[in-house]
Amino acid sequence: MTIKIKESPLFWPAKLKKDTLEVLDETLIPKKLHYIKVKNTAAAVRVIREMKTRAFGQFLVVLSIFLLELDRNKGLSEEKLLAKIRDIAESLNKSRPTFPFAEVTGIVVRWAIMAIDSGVKIRPFVKRNLQGYLESIRIKRLERVERIAALINDGDSILTHCNVSGELAMAAYICKREKKDVHYFATETRPYFQGAKLTCWELGQMGVPVTLVADNAIGSLMADRLVNKVIVGSDRSCANGDFANKIGTYQIAVTAKLFDIPFFALTQPSDRIRTGKDIPIEIRQADELIRFEEKKIYRGKVDGFYPGFDVVPHELVTRPIPIKVSENE
Amino acid sequence: MTIKIKESPLFWPAKLKKDTLEVLDETLIPKKLHYIKVKNTAAAVRVIREMKTRAFGQFLVVLSIFLLELDRNKGLSEEKLLAKIRDIAESLNKSRPTFPFAEVTGIVVRWAIMAIDSGVKIRPFVKRNLQGYLESIRIKRLERVERIAALINDGDSILTHCNVSGELAMAAYICKREKKDVHYFATETRPYFQGAKLTCWELGQMGVPVTLVADNAIGSLMADRLVNKVIVGSDRSCANGDFANKIGTYQIAVTAKLFDIPFFALTQPSDRIRTGKDIPIEIRQADELIRFEEKKIYRGKVDGFYPGFDVVPHELVTRPIPIKVSENE
Repeated sequence: MTIKIKESPLFWPAKLKKDTLEVLDETLIPKKLHYIKVKNTAAAVRVIREMKTRAFGQFLVVLSIFLLELDRNKGLSEEKLLAKIRDIAESLNKSRPTFPFAEVTGIVVRWAIMAIDSGVKIRPFVKRNLQGYLESIRIKRLERVERIAALINDGDSILTHCNVSGELAMAAYICKREKKDVHYFATETRPYFQGAKLTCWELGQMGVPVTLVADNAIGSLMADRLVNKVIVGSDRSCANGDFANKIGTYQIAVTAKLFDIPFFALTQPSDRIRTGKDIPIEIRQADELIRFEEKKIYRGKVDGFYPGFDVVPHELVTRPIPIKVSENE
Repeated sequence: MTIKIKESPLFWPAKLKKDTLEVLDETLIPKKLHYIKVKNTAAAVRVIREMKTRAFGQFLVVLSIFLLELDRNKGLSEEKLLAKIRDIAESLNKSRPTFPFAEVTGIVVRWAIMAIDSGVKIRPFVKRNLQGYLESIRIKRLERVERIAALINDGDSILTHCNVSGELAMAAYICKREKKDVHYFATETRPYFQGAKLTCWELGQMGVPVTLVADNAIGSLMADRLVNKVIVGSDRSCANGDFANKIGTYQIAVTAKLFDIPFFALTQPSDRIRTGKDIPIEIRQADELIRFEEKKIYRGKVDGFYPGFDVVPHELVTRPIPIKVSENE
């Protein structure tokens, strides 16, 4: 029996429509499903900088905007087109300085250079490569959804943190169709509440039961054996299996280890990052911690410290569920 | 050199003024310092049920309201006064069913019975005992403030969770006067944000530097060696050293143990509770998790699970800092 996968909007949150890249505004979920129309690199930089899209969405926007710009700049000479591609890459790299967009934009620049070196036209060569690359990522992620579904058993109670960009919700949908009785716990994921806003919403869309818990409750859930598996995503993963993910993942991993609760991480191992020590951690604005939407949580004089991510050493991972997204595997 | 202790309003948040018990409305901090005028048992039950006061404040309100009622009921016969005391106890016990107020109200009822058995008047006997008991608790807590200050060293960086009802802030004040250079990290303490609202506020009032962190950041803080001691309070503590405290304390204790970071718990060991297994955990309304003040964090259909407390086994405590508050020590 093959089950048709129901796609979560968070799985592929940016779509090319003729001269426009439509980017899901994740900041409005769960209030509404709204797509921002992105027409050029400057607009792409804006949605990234303002974090309208995040995690896999940012990666997707970075790659897709090249496709859009290649079509927008049809009159340019080969030399000027290469310069243009370099400019776009540079702008994207600067959009979030601590983010490794250069790894991704570098791929596109290298394709353009490869085209020149091989004496073929840049535009069709880079476009074909980009489209093939995106399609291969899509297929690998869909395959991973099936692998996630396969490791979820009837009767499981699964804890997740932050948001896994569609894959966990889609796996949950498959499990539901396979009549597996599974419960999900989503952490709130302070300060931004991605668990409350994104994960609960997309599991709800899949018709799957989900319970929201405070980030503080994970120790209690595990001590009381209310969860028997943990599945989390990763923002960056290393050759040795270490990975960085939304702040809070580390203490979940530590506590899961203590109780021998299997801990699975969806990774995209990079050959360029050897170990967790090589991952720079973005320190975000204290204000994001002190405000909730427009409301100040704390009115007095206080500093806030908000590391965006933490690093989980590979020893705490029961089994990674990797996909390779490098261009030259 | 003896340093005069600057008292935090959270240290003794209910004060008898003639015919009124003035109870600090902790829900309005840090916006304003407002005291609710409580004139009788029904009003005391209300401030407890609506959690205008919490932790030590509730304990204090429960004891103080007897003093007020003894003065309000001067015309009663000894028999009717005993019945009245029993009624008051009963009402208080029912104010938060999962809370062990009966342990405290039982003391007062026993004093009344003791008076009858010894052939002395109930009112002066119970009043004297109550006043002496409250005064002894006050002195023991002030002594503990000094013990906390003594274990904080120059250069320390201290993590705390939820709110320690004045004692930590007052110890921090002593350390500051002793010229110890100490930094404090306060967790937000979702869902209610006691760390953000109460702890940051009272440390700020003492002129002491404090940094707010998401509950998710404690693993990262410890892994990066940004804190070298943990000091937390306890809501209930057991004869064997286990204790219950605000949800999230357990995972802090687990992570501190992993990094050999000394973990201190302010306890009030009860002979009546043998181990952590004997502490019932209050499960609070899911709505408290899903709303922030009046605003809904999550609008879709979702369950929330909010255990109010978790239990820390004594093995994770480096050293308890106990006071005994039982009447018959």
